[in-house]
Amino acid sequence: MAGSSFGTIFKLTTFGESHGNAIGGIIDGVPANQIIDLAAVQAELDRRRPGQSAIVTQRKESDTVEILSGIFEGKTTGSPIGFMIKNDDQKSNDYDHIKEVFRPSHADFTYNSKYGHRDHRGGGRSSARETASRVVAGAIAKQILGSIGIDIVAYVDQVGAIQLGDDIDYNVIDENPVRCPNLNVAAEMEALIKEVRKSGDTIGGSIRCEINHVPAGLGEPVFDKLHAELGKAMLSINAVKGFEFGSGFECISMRGSEHNDLFNEDGSTQTNYSGGIQGGISNGMPITMRIAFKPVATIIKSQTTLNADDELVEMEGKGRHDPCVVPRAVPIVEAMAAITILDFFLRDKATVL
Amino acid sequence: MAGSSFGTIFKLTTFGESHGNAIGGIIDGVPANQIIDLAAVQAELDRRRPGQSAIVTQRKESDTVEILSGIFEGKTTGSPIGFMIKNDDQKSNDYDHIKEVFRPSHADFTYNSKYGHRDHRGGGRSSARETASRVVAGAIAKQILGSIGIDIVAYVDQVGAIQLGDDIDYNVIDENPVRCPNLNVAAEMEALIKEVRKSGDTIGGSIRCEINHVPAGLGEPVFDKLHAELGKAMLSINAVKGFEFGSGFECISMRGSEHNDLFNEDGSTQTNYSGGIQGGISNGMPITMRIAFKPVATIIKSQTTLNADDELVEMEGKGRHDPCVVPRAVPIVEAMAAITILDFFLRDKATVL
Amino acid sequence: MAGSSFGTIFKLTTFGESHGNAIGGIIDGVPANQIIDLAAVQAELDRRRPGQSAIVTQRKESDTVEILSGIFEGKTTGSPIGFMIKNDDQKSNDYDHIKEVFRPSHADFTYNSKYGHRDHRGGGRSSARETASRVVAGAIAKQILGSIGIDIVAYVDQVGAIQLGDDIDYNVIDENPVRCPNLNVAAEMEALIKEVRKSGDTIGGSIRCEINHVPAGLGEPVFDKLHAELGKAMLSINAVKGFEFGSGFECISMRGSEHNDLFNEDGSTQTNYSGGIQGGISNGMPITMRIAFKPVATIIKSQTTLNADDELVEMEGKGRHDPCVVPRAVPIVEAMAAITILDFFLRDKATVL
Amino acid sequence: MAGSSFGTIFKLTTFGESHGNAIGGIIDGVPANQIIDLAAVQAELDRRRPGQSAIVTQRKESDTVEILSGIFEGKTTGSPIGFMIKNDDQKSNDYDHIKEVFRPSHADFTYNSKYGHRDHRGGGRSSARETASRVVAGAIAKQILGSIGIDIVAYVDQVGAIQLGDDIDYNVIDENPVRCPNLNVAAEMEALIKEVRKSGDTIGGSIRCEINHVPAGLGEPVFDKLHAELGKAMLSINAVKGFEFGSGFECISMRGSEHNDLFNEDGSTQTNYSGGIQGGISNGMPITMRIAFKPVATIIKSQTTLNADDELVEMEGKGRHDPCVVPRAVPIVEAMAAITILDFFLRDKATVL
Repeated sequence: MAGSSFGTIFKLTTFGESHGNAIGGIIDGVPANQIIDLAAVQAELDRRRPGQSAIVTQRKESDTVEILSGIFEGKTTGSPIGFMIKNDDQKSNDYDHIKEVFRPSHADFTYNSKYGHRDHRGGGRSSARETASRVVAGAIAKQILGSIGIDIVAYVDQVGAIQLGDDIDYNVIDENPVRCPNLNVAAEMEALIKEVRKSGDTIGGSIRCEINHVPAGLGEPVFDKLHAELGKAMLSINAVKGFEFGSGFECISMRGSEHNDLFNEDGSTQTNYSGGIQGGISNGMPITMRIAFKPVATIIKSQTTLNADDELVEMEGKGRHDPCVVPRAVPIVEAMAAITILDFFLRDKATVL
Repeated sequence: MAGSSFGTIFKLTTFGESHGNAIGGIIDGVPANQIIDLAAVQAELDRRRPGQSAIVTQRKESDTVEILSGIFEGKTTGSPIGFMIKNDDQKSNDYDHIKEVFRPSHADFTYNSKYGHRDHRGGGRSSARETASRVVAGAIAKQILGSIGIDIVAYVDQVGAIQLGDDIDYNVIDENPVRCPNLNVAAEMEALIKEVRKSGDTIGGSIRCEINHVPAGLGEPVFDKLHAELGKAMLSINAVKGFEFGSGFECISMRGSEHNDLFNEDGSTQTNYSGGIQGGISNGMPITMRIAFKPVATIIKSQTTLNADDELVEMEGKGRHDPCVVPRAVPIVEAMAAITILDFFLRDKATVL
Repeated sequence: MAGSSFGTIFKLTTFGESHGNAIGGIIDGVPANQIIDLAAVQAELDRRRPGQSAIVTQRKESDTVEILSGIFEGKTTGSPIGFMIKNDDQKSNDYDHIKEVFRPSHADFTYNSKYGHRDHRGGGRSSARETASRVVAGAIAKQILGSIGIDIVAYVDQVGAIQLGDDIDYNVIDENPVRCPNLNVAAEMEALIKEVRKSGDTIGGSIRCEINHVPAGLGEPVFDKLHAELGKAMLSINAVKGFEFGSGFECISMRGSEHNDLFNEDGSTQTNYSGGIQGGISNGMPITMRIAFKPVATIIKSQTTLNADDELVEMEGKGRHDPCVVPRAVPIVEAMAAITILDFFLRDKATVL
Repeated sequence: MAGSSFGTIFKLTTFGESHGNAIGGIIDGVPANQIIDLAAVQAELDRRRPGQSAIVTQRKESDTVEILSGIFEGKTTGSPIGFMIKNDDQKSNDYDHIKEVFRPSHADFTYNSKYGHRDHRGGGRSSARETASRVVAGAIAKQILGSIGIDIVAYVDQVGAIQLGDDIDYNVIDENPVRCPNLNVAAEMEALIKEVRKSGDTIGGSIRCEINHVPAGLGEPVFDKLHAELGKAMLSINAVKGFEFGSGFECISMRGSEHNDLFNEDGSTQTNYSGGIQGGISNGMPITMRIAFKPVATIIKSQTTLNADDELVEMEGKGRHDPCVVPRAVPIVEAMAAITILDFFLRDKATVL
């Protein structure tokens, strides 16, 4: 019940703090006989890695994954895949100034309330560093989904007030540091992020994700609706404040007559306000969703905050932080989407005799 | 894995279709020695009941709950509470016209894809009738939470384009059929819903929910963050398309320096963009969230749709349906919030030796 | 975590006390499109029913099951099957004498220790009456397993010191009240049970169970070994004190050279000390196990016991109880075997892409 | 559902094959602020280690545990404890002869049936090497239980036909290589094991386990009875064929009047046939159980067996194996007992508001 596992059949459990010996995880329920390309797994990790561009944190973490079990002669055995990423850039002293201080809008205060003490170095367990383990599991899930024709793509669609319009080229997503599928908009976003960083501040953003070629029938009725689990998956990513799928919040001001997705003869629909899911079960159309990320709480400005003695004190942010999380969050969103969809694919297998 | 259970310690499992013999559920993990006011449970059900006002479905369902176990001499025993609500208004013939037809934006097509056949009467298992069981469990959870000082309130904050502003009076929520905490805005919303119904159409809406006096420390790190589970809870309610908490989607265009919630000396914060949750764990501030509901898919207009033989056919909606779901969804949102918070309260108990 | 559920995919959750309004349950994860013979379900319940013969309790309980959901037009829909058995013979006054007294070797003392109070009537939740719900779920599982060729048989193999030898006729199991597959031994056992009852006492017994035609490959490595889950299933039945499979406790004094099951060319084995399971996974041979049941704790003799004020008092057993539980436990053992095997059958489906 | 996790609140998930890079695990749900003595954890591992005496396998494995997370400044943080034991003695060539052969009464055939291929080296995932991870988690659980006064002891009580009598001295358990609490009996057992090994054969044995000072009230009614979960825990250990608690299989021939445990005034009982558990819930008396282990299947004799081409072939056992598993299984039994009891202790916390 301690919350370090996700999924039911294809199930990831993670461990590790930002500045401990290592982070890592165990993936249970991996179907046997799947060929896994470990270089492709590492490549996904590299998309999440700090220091990859000028607009992300400049921490140096190599984030090299070591597979410890579950793959034999290049193929999954059906046994759990254990893996580990060593923590190699532990500038823990950077965090001495927060040992006795609760940073505003961080998890310092709440972890302390819950556990009585905490590993304060780099946020400890609350650090987004944990998401690297999700990317490993997600990369494996993605490869398995790929073998049955399902693909997943995520991209940045808003940074601050700058929104992506309808002009989208999926091919350029990884050609710009923002991971926006329009190079002009990407350039604007990049400029904004640089300006925000220069001022010692941070900025929010949002990511869209599309899952294509999901067969109709995935998802479970009532509590484990496909979009409910996708929502949980996304909301569990650090800094996420909102989740919507299909028409999302826009549905509030729509009428049923315009919102209904009319069928084509082949079972596809003319519109996709449903976002590929009806009654919690996939209908074969693309699954679409959008996730809101708040501005990073660590800013390089002086702020009044609370210390462990209940005194208000001045603190100034230090360390190397992201001015905007969405560029690095793209592979994390894809990973959580992949883990969720593969889990539901396998769950669905268990519904037929 | 079939998805009919919610919660881990305080755990609800439900059964039942719209037009079967009965719906109901089992609540496991209820703490012992709790005095339960069954009239208050029924009163919550009555807030969800069809036919309660002129702007909801006019189906006649008495929705009387029968407790079958787990309460002895007025107090919970710690054993599971079994309960049942008989289905007494089974106009199943109303649904003969959809037996071979998949209604647009309903779960007919997806259930059929998943299971090969379905109970088509009234939507069967996909009907929102199932949420009555959630309200029973939620009403019990609410009473238990009330005994430790936690209270929950939900209300309609938007119908179509009509938004609730800052002028809020919690006392009037149940004094108007819309369940909007401002009587003037409620009147506008009511007029819109009536107009929409007259045109045979439906309209979307949204609900805000606030949970007050939650102690700091509830929620589990990483995957089972408090807001992730609340999000799943809300997204699992029929017709929901989006969930946000605290600043929600507005965070996208905010900077860290304005979004950070600065502390007061007592550990509370000056603002509450965090929505009462930091790092997935409650911080003692009010938990705030907003949930988007789509316009009901059943409209009293002719639509082209698909039948079981893959032919496009014309169908016209029949039956007695809600023109807008949010008024009746208010107690459902409160119920899911109560179940979730009580579950995390009990989960937290298990973290201390 | 409150323990009222069993299974992972095919999952039974039960509710109800001995003398409450009803007992019952919800079966989630039932594969769709299965034809269910409800008369056969009731027939299994009748095998467990009190009053069926002269050697079991003479309580009058009709034990009629009502299906509330999940079956439509004679076939399972894939939605949960809710069911209920009303309690119709509530001689609760029979139990007034134990309201303030903890009966020796019953659950009175432990329930009181755990929950602070209890429904004392007929043992409340700790009564074996709860097992009727298991028989309902087991009967449904059995039918589904039957459709794929798997069959299950259980029988009494020991009562007191009287043991069944090698002379077994499966056809006579339900032709004698003991449910022993040898009429001569059955007659001896019956005589012993009658003598024990006449003396106001009770006696222990054991049941063997065989599961045939299970395909090789069911069971999960490590913690959820097939026999570990079967063991838990059986140990969870009231009055069970021990579980063994294959060679069981006899293996202690055997050597590897005699215990090893040598292969035939078709993959079957010459002996079956493994009991059909190797490394926690079925090997295609019959799964064999044996379960020990203690003598019922309620005896019609005066005993010194403890009351709620920590005083030792004399009490005399009243009510109508079984002198030996094994005859009525046979269908319960079969039910738990069926639920477990069907669950693992469906779990195995989820291991292949 | 793939079975690599045990426990609900205090939850162990393991990974790793006998001859892969490493084995290890993640322990989630560890209460915060517990001081952990890592040397004591290693000491438990050393009790399970190969090569510790003349009567166990002579494989050289150092079995050094590395803690990767969850302990900060000597205390648990409440975050998951990740740990790893590197595999350093990988004589994988020892197993080339079984690559295409299914050893009798091993898991080779069943793993192949389930997964289509397997890591054959040293048994891969089916190897008892995995139990080292259980010992790590169990050693941590034991320390936490010790801090609340609960202690656990296991010992060998039978090897072949040699049984431990009533003359027991707990102090000598770790002073003899058999781990039998009577030095004379231990010497006999040791001689038998040596004789058996000389003949290239193996022999079965049994272990008793006692858990003392468990407070009354642990365990959950119905399916998750304390003894049912203990039974599953023990049956999941490699080579176990049977489990009994309290009176165990002896209860079959007992009468209720002799089997009932009469109360003393302080709530303790005069006898303990219940084995410390009534109705699935602890009653405060010592919890007692006995576990049967089969003779190891690997013998150094020629046996006819099956290969992957369905041909019967001769094979001779090679490698370094245990002639009798019980001496090394003692710490594993204690570990599984500790994990189970701590989990139920924490589960019980969640039943009170």
